Amino acid sequence: MDIEKPASAQQSVQPAIILVRPQLGENIGKAARAMLNFGLTEMRLVAPRDGWPNPMAGPAASGADQILAEAKLFDNVADAVADITHVYATTVRKRGIDKPVFTPQEAAYQIHAQPGKSAILFGAERSGLETEEVGYARSIITVPINPEFGSLNLAQAVIICAYEWSKNQSLSMPPSVDMLDAAPQGEFEGMIGHLFEILKEKDYFFPPERSEVTKNTLRNLLTKPSWNSQEIRTLRGVFSTFGKSKQSPRN
Amino acid sequence: MDIEKPASAQQSVQPAIILVRPQLGENIGKAARAMLNFGLTEMRLVAPRDGWPNPMAGPAASGADQILAEAKLFDNVADAVADITHVYATTVRKRGIDKPVFTPQEAAYQIHAQPGKSAILFGAERSGLETEEVGYARSIITVPINPEFGSLNLAQAVIICAYEWSKNQSLSMPPSVDMLDAAPQGEFEGMIGHLFEILKEKDYFFPPERSEVTKNTLRNLLTKPSWNSQEIRTLRGVFSTFGKSKQSPRN
Repeated sequence: MDIEKPASAQQSVQPAIILVRPQLGENIGKAARAMLNFGLTEMRLVAPRDGWPNPMAGPAASGADQILAEAKLFDNVADAVADITHVYATTVRKRGIDKPVFTPQEAAYQIHAQPGKSAILFGAERSGLETEEVGYARSIITVPINPEFGSLNLAQAVIICAYEWSKNQSLSMPPSVDMLDAAPQGEFEGMIGHLFEILKEKDYFFPPERSEVTKNTLRNLLTKPSWNSQEIRTLRGVFSTFGKSKQSPRN
Repeated sequence: MDIEKPASAQQSVQPAIILVRPQLGENIGKAARAMLNFGLTEMRLVAPRDGWPNPMAGPAASGADQILAEAKLFDNVADAVADITHVYATTVRKRGIDKPVFTPQEAAYQIHAQPGKSAILFGAERSGLETEEVGYARSIITVPINPEFGSLNLAQAVIICAYEWSKNQSLSMPPSVDMLDAAPQGEFEGMIGHLFEILKEKDYFFPPERSEVTKNTLRNLLTKPSWNSQEIRTLRGVFSTFGKSKQSPRN
């Protein structure tokens, strides 16, 4: 059994699989196995509940130990996606977040076709991704499952995304040269942090207990357009101007 | 999260998932969960190693208990596929069997498009399907996985086939009325058994230790063309003629 790889096909950059607050080491191992089955090798872990490394992960990986050994550990989603251009969040619940929703198949096409590195976020086993974590994503991936049953576990969600990616390996397209690439998420975070700082100084976040919700709203809004690095520099120039001005931003 | 179902889409008959000699009850449960996640409900079990029902299956099914409760038990593959028109065998190994090989995606399209009931055979956890069991299938399904790793477990293989089937649910097509349906496997078995009987009387199977291999070769050959019921009746007429004649079959 061979994976078909036409000699002419340009291999696209493979997406990172990011497990956010995974609970069981066994599930981390199963996810690694699911990845390697379909040729994905880059795993990132955000704050695994039982620490890392986890002795339960290896046996469940059934030979995909190298994925676990090379997995990168992060404290939070922001750091884990700092170098990623296209962040996808897998979620089954509608969260009132106005982001484009794609099937694993559609996302796989995009990951191959678009220049820049992609990553797919998977939430904790029971709770999934928090609204704030979804905020780091440009797009949502929803696996269309039986609405009357729907209990896809972590490794199952990973395997379906990895499977769809592997199917389209031969479809990857050369990067477009006429357009600047969308900026990686770290640049967005720099810009968003910059904005939050200025807004805080201006007492924008009021009442204080609403500030996290407001920040989420802003992050979602700002992450959406996939601005390129130049556009982000321009926007930060705008924000800096707000920060400096003692007058209304309108002037 | 909803499955999109255009009102105009005609639902095709869902394929039966047939687990052949499954070893662990836990894996039967996981397969049931994988099925129900994507809307498949008909499970058949052929000679499960630890008998049936199996107390380990329920907990692993995570709520898909109804699938297990309604699972039909069979002694052998022949009985399990007797009412099936299109039998697919999942296998990763090349076995020198000259049957068409399809991806899960291609098979899913066919299952929706072709009239008649389909089934997908999955082999035992360690060993997969035996050559003789593959002989009952018209076609092979191979999940294209990483050739350097490749360790898809039973539930993973089931979930990918079920997932591909569910994706095409809205694409199901009305049955063609101009063509007779391919005959169900039971009719093929009737014909094949009929032929074997006659051949045995004529000492065709010689030497005796090669007879199982020879029978497999014949079953593969005869199952391949997807003859319809009328064609099978015609062939059986031919075979009967052979059986009756004391002379060479050529006359």
